[in-house]
Amino acid sequence: MTKHFVDMNNDSPTQIMKLIELSEQFKAGLKLTLKRPVYAANLFFENSTRTHASFYMAEQKLGMTVLDLNMATSSTQKGESLEDTVKTLQALGTDIEVIRHGQNGWYEAMVADKSLTTSLVNGGDGSGQHPSQCLLDLMTIYEEFSYFKGLSVGIIGDLAHSRVAKSDAQLLHKLGATVYFSGPKEWYDESFTPYGQYIENIDELIEKLDVVMLLRVQLERLNTNSVKQFKALDYHTQFGLTKARFKKAKQQAIIMHPAPVNRGVEIDSDLVEAPQSRIFKQMANGVFARMAILASLLDEKGLLQEDLNID
Amino acid sequence: MTKHFVDMNNDSPTQIMKLIELSEQFKAGLKLTLKRPVYAANLFFENSTRTHASFYMAEQKLGMTVLDLNMATSSTQKGESLEDTVKTLQALGTDIEVIRHGQNGWYEAMVADKSLTTSLVNGGDGSGQHPSQCLLDLMTIYEEFSYFKGLSVGIIGDLAHSRVAKSDAQLLHKLGATVYFSGPKEWYDESFTPYGQYIENIDELIEKLDVVMLLRVQLERLNTNSVKQFKALDYHTQFGLTKARFKKAKQQAIIMHPAPVNRGVEIDSDLVEAPQSRIFKQMANGVFARMAILASLLDEKGLLQEDLNID
Amino acid sequence: MTKHFVDMNNDSPTQIMKLIELSEQFKAGLKLTLKRPVYAANLFFENSTRTHASFYMAEQKLGMTVLDLNMATSSTQKGESLEDTVKTLQALGTDIEVIRHGQNGWYEAMVADKSLTTSLVNGGDGSGQHPSQCLLDLMTIYEEFSYFKGLSVGIIGDLAHSRVAKSDAQLLHKLGATVYFSGPKEWYDESFTPYGQYIENIDELIEKLDVVMLLRVQLERLNTNSVKQFKALDYHTQFGLTKARFKKAKQQAIIMHPAPVNRGVEIDSDLVEAPQSRIFKQMANGVFARMAILASLLDEKGLLQEDLNID
Repeated sequence: MTKHFVDMNNDSPTQIMKLIELSEQFKAGLKLTLKRPVYAANLFFENSTRTHASFYMAEQKLGMTVLDLNMATSSTQKGESLEDTVKTLQALGTDIEVIRHGQNGWYEAMVADKSLTTSLVNGGDGSGQHPSQCLLDLMTIYEEFSYFKGLSVGIIGDLAHSRVAKSDAQLLHKLGATVYFSGPKEWYDESFTPYGQYIENIDELIEKLDVVMLLRVQLERLNTNSVKQFKALDYHTQFGLTKARFKKAKQQAIIMHPAPVNRGVEIDSDLVEAPQSRIFKQMANGVFARMAILASLLDEKGLLQEDLNID
Repeated sequence: MTKHFVDMNNDSPTQIMKLIELSEQFKAGLKLTLKRPVYAANLFFENSTRTHASFYMAEQKLGMTVLDLNMATSSTQKGESLEDTVKTLQALGTDIEVIRHGQNGWYEAMVADKSLTTSLVNGGDGSGQHPSQCLLDLMTIYEEFSYFKGLSVGIIGDLAHSRVAKSDAQLLHKLGATVYFSGPKEWYDESFTPYGQYIENIDELIEKLDVVMLLRVQLERLNTNSVKQFKALDYHTQFGLTKARFKKAKQQAIIMHPAPVNRGVEIDSDLVEAPQSRIFKQMANGVFARMAILASLLDEKGLLQEDLNID
Repeated sequence: MTKHFVDMNNDSPTQIMKLIELSEQFKAGLKLTLKRPVYAANLFFENSTRTHASFYMAEQKLGMTVLDLNMATSSTQKGESLEDTVKTLQALGTDIEVIRHGQNGWYEAMVADKSLTTSLVNGGDGSGQHPSQCLLDLMTIYEEFSYFKGLSVGIIGDLAHSRVAKSDAQLLHKLGATVYFSGPKEWYDESFTPYGQYIENIDELIEKLDVVMLLRVQLERLNTNSVKQFKALDYHTQFGLTKARFKKAKQQAIIMHPAPVNRGVEIDSDLVEAPQSRIFKQMANGVFARMAILASLLDEKGLLQEDLNID
């Protein structure tokens, strides 16, 4: 059956570590050779500079030929289903299709379809998963500390609407880290309970943390919040990472954020470029993490000269 | 004079067969060598996943460098004419320009312009021609039957608004096939009369057919139809290819559709993936047909190491 | 400090001549070798066929890998600043970012930021600069006359809103040319005074000129003009380059225009293709001028095998 990369929830710690190691190998300069021309299609139905450009770079660095489709002007506007678009691009010869789509679990029926030969990569589905972001987050943390067991990671902000928060929490928990959550109670969700402790007050949490992982505030939610009528400044004061607050974190603590950042809302603008910030490192690592994801699929499909030994 | 590929209406049976054979050679793995870097520009002023991506793949497979322009955000919005855009891209160094544009015969003045050195390829003009679709249709039929003479082909649906129906009918007639038309009377057009017989009732036609070629229903036409007020379901019952109806076709009959398909309207959804369906094969063949079209222009321009012997 | 290419105002005549010569070398076939894969990102926040496609061609001809981002659907719509987008793309691994943006001087803070390692290229900023257009204009003039000193150049039209007029005027003046301005008084601007003489009546000016450089009329300005209520035809009669008017120019005079042209407004349609017109030559030269710009940055960054000796 065709291998896809749509979530990391069922990956074992060993599988996860192998992907992290492969990402690091690409960062260290690993080059692979394609057995024949390989075609990737990028289908981004939602806005994205970072993820889209990062996959494009990863595909280019692996020597793939890229069909970068502008889905805003495509036949899907004529009512074609995503499934039919995927099959069309498969018929045209694509080996891998990277898709971001607003519908949660858009890939579910397709990964069960044995007739599909193209490999699907989830570049983000609705408020569901964002597994390539998850891998780059894990890679960035591992690069810093070289272990996960016992590491304290706080995920702070709009948990309910984040597609990376739950995957990160789940995997960090599986890898032995101690996970905490913080942020407005209305944005917390019971589904996080199995993976860590919720501490509403960020000031009670901050000093425990090795990793301060902030989430993007969807600014429109601040004003439409049914319980409290937050403004951006209120949020910054109550839940944002201010300079004063960050001083209370452990000395070795690092700052992470999936970006784009709202400077002055979830984080003080100066902290984005602070020595403890790994925000731009996360972006740089994203290219290598995505190379690892794509290469693991190419390996499975027998399209690489080299054997990656990842299964 | 510069050679263009804007329609196939004046091609002789010999020329058509040469293009089909060249398409099959590409499908069998033919590789060509460019004498120097060759630049193609794709200018799609209308939505298209399939045709656009198919040309892009064909250009890549031929080793061309592709300028894939998003015409929705181009200077043509500053009121520049298509002619001036074409000349601009020629000045920038393009050898071939693939254009889809809503205006019928957009290319007419340009193919007569002897100062033009770039080669134009018609990727679809208004309700006019769609010659690359036509070639892939012929290729797919020929691949199946290895002959055209006496083959019965039914073209069914919105004939009046289809840019591929008339070209297909004309060429199939020229190659000796027996062409039939079916579908709502309001969507039939006297201009088809020279090429075949119109049989309104699909049930009277279906058993004669070797090739059941369905056309896409523009769903908006079903409700604005001046004569009958069709709904999608009515259309499916009266003119669509239902499973029951297809059982009455010849045993060797194949199903074709230019896609995107309205599943459950012009065709039962299951038939799209049926063993007799060639719909995805058409898409796959489209890449090779377009390689043949582009290569024939490159050959004419003296840009290939190899001689294709197609003229 | 990282070298950028955002304007040419501070370049010495020697530096300008070196860039023109390098452009001509590329036109004559100069090939360079990259030491490693080089990544360029094109960020065009404003419409542009010509400049965008021209940079794309130049990047391809230099062997760069190009991220061509559709900024209309990017994260900048989530409120990300241009600075953060630039830093993001730098983190992803881009060496050069070519940006067109509606804000005058969008690059000012960034070129002073020592932490930036990516090189910025200004593809046009608001009503500010358009230095790559400026270089191709100078290249085209030099190609024709082989000198600037004493050459009479008239820049005619909507001076106040043109981002190329002032740069061209400044540099031509610096290189020793005699610059004149003409066009509606309302569209003239005192800031041009240091570089040349304003002669409102084009008929008094035309016979002095070696180079008739027309500017694009923003058609919407013709009707909203606060002083005179021009129509396109009035403009053509009063200020446009009619055939009769051009007959009074010097015999060797050439016609230039940055395009897209409004045929029949600032210039008679037939003159666009006249033997004295260099309009399409400007476009062709634009690719080579942009290769020179990009190559000079690659040289500065140590990414070329060859030494360009341009500093």
